Amino acid sequence: MASSNPKWSERELILNISEIFAATNSQLLVGIGDDAAVVSRPETPVVVTTDMAVEDVHFKTSWSSAEEIGRKVAAANLADIYAMGGTPKFLTVAMSATGNEELEWMLGIARGIAHEANIAGAQVIGGDLSRGEKIVISITAIGECNTPILRSGAQVGDSIYISSLPGWSAAGLQALIKNIRGGSIDFAISEHRAPSVDYDNAQQIAIGANSLCDISDSLMIQGEQIADASGVCLELDGDLITKHPDFAELLQVAETLKVSVFDLILSGGEDHCFLATGIGLKGFEIGKVLPGSGIRLRSIETPQPGWQHFN
Amino acid sequence: MASSNPKWSERELILNISEIFAATNSQLLVGIGDDAAVVSRPETPVVVTTDMAVEDVHFKTSWSSAEEIGRKVAAANLADIYAMGGTPKFLTVAMSATGNEELEWMLGIARGIAHEANIAGAQVIGGDLSRGEKIVISITAIGECNTPILRSGAQVGDSIYISSLPGWSAAGLQALIKNIRGGSIDFAISEHRAPSVDYDNAQQIAIGANSLCDISDSLMIQGEQIADASGVCLELDGDLITKHPDFAELLQVAETLKVSVFDLILSGGEDHCFLATGIGLKGFEIGKVLPGSGIRLRSIETPQPGWQHFN
Repeated sequence: MASSNPKWSERELILNISEIFAATNSQLLVGIGDDAAVVSRPETPVVVTTDMAVEDVHFKTSWSSAEEIGRKVAAANLADIYAMGGTPKFLTVAMSATGNEELEWMLGIARGIAHEANIAGAQVIGGDLSRGEKIVISITAIGECNTPILRSGAQVGDSIYISSLPGWSAAGLQALIKNIRGGSIDFAISEHRAPSVDYDNAQQIAIGANSLCDISDSLMIQGEQIADASGVCLELDGDLITKHPDFAELLQVAETLKVSVFDLILSGGEDHCFLATGIGLKGFEIGKVLPGSGIRLRSIETPQPGWQHFN
Repeated sequence: MASSNPKWSERELILNISEIFAATNSQLLVGIGDDAAVVSRPETPVVVTTDMAVEDVHFKTSWSSAEEIGRKVAAANLADIYAMGGTPKFLTVAMSATGNEELEWMLGIARGIAHEANIAGAQVIGGDLSRGEKIVISITAIGECNTPILRSGAQVGDSIYISSLPGWSAAGLQALIKNIRGGSIDFAISEHRAPSVDYDNAQQIAIGANSLCDISDSLMIQGEQIADASGVCLELDGDLITKHPDFAELLQVAETLKVSVFDLILSGGEDHCFLATGIGLKGFEIGKVLPGSGIRLRSIETPQPGWQHFN
């Protein structure tokens, strides 16, 4: 239902967006502007993922700039390609908007997506724009992947690794809700608005990994998914986690926000850092894969009933 | 933002949906359940398109069953692959829902998508489910395509062809708005709820075509896109169009609905029939490609100012 007096025409917007997404890419045979995009035959198997973000559920326009929202939604998709041991190449973007957004705001979304895609070496090759009462952004990422690394590959005896410490995005959300600012908390807020996913780390931790995923929901949820898929138990060791070089800073943030630092680390999502199991991986070790099932917490105070979930 | 009392759990829903989308496919290396899907290296260049449908903008749950909505959104994407001269292979589906839908209704959406994908020989290999106030369905279709047929290939001297007569979906919408039923109007309504796209016709009309697209917006809009992209004029000939075997039936429907049959044919969208130019194509001829620009109407009464648009 088109807004009766939209601030931009679809034609004007698409023209501008096409410029933002324009790039020289010898693999791109047909880009934006026809019924579909066409890319040259890939060198490897193709990895595909899709992710939708809904206004007021996954982001708030009052909390995040258009660029941050675009970056965040793109990061969620790009991370899923790395989480298979793949390399993202192409994105498509479908979006609904009311028509009352400023043209610059709409272009900010496109710039944010293009920025994040560019970091990961990927390019937006197509999309769809429609009207709706809420902003909804749905991205599909397509990549190349020689040998997929699955959640089901964890072996008893593997160590468990993270590419960086999760919890910052969840801390940022708490800070926004509680309206607390300053110092490391500002970093947490910026991580919530648009996580700075380290795609290089993702490729490093994947080398030799038996299982791999990105922490989109939480360390507990993704850990349980690896445990279930692999038929093993993942033991997360608080003594190791507290040795992470960023732990002290996150602890300080947690104390300022009056939340448990382990709640942030175990239950916070959307940092899109990577969780892997294997031997001698290039990541930070936080535990061991044992016989059994599910997650076991070692040297971590078990969350009480009624504890606060962050996603 | 989850509904406080959802009628289905995400886990239950995804388990059921995975069964609906399950299929034996030797090209599928990793299916639903990991961070992303992986398919074997394609034989040809890869064609990609995405399309989003928003509740109360593109469909109404009071007018269409869940299966019809699923079919309609899938058809829009599948048609875009055929519109490049390609063959669809894989779909990803991202969807937001309130949580108050019945589980059976949600599965109906999945069944509708699976039904339409199956007709076109494609398979759903991944997706994302999120909460939102409105139903939003975003599908990405991925296919194979040896030689893309573009909108920009129309040549002066080409004839213009359609794979079938457009206007039925627009007629169905008018019938729903005006609450008129019966006879051929019921067919029009069913075409609006879920168009019966003839994918075989799409492949036939593409053989030897110089330009090709699907009529998603309207014959006028897509015709103009071909004219613009090719730097030619498309002359649509009313004397030819009235000879189409379905014209008399659509005329009768238009008269019952008190709308102009040429408004339906020229300005109606969402039938997803195909528009091509070339010589001796396997389609129904409706005009000629001439030097010049834009659309020229021959033997068709020019729509008056204030005429009714259907999309």
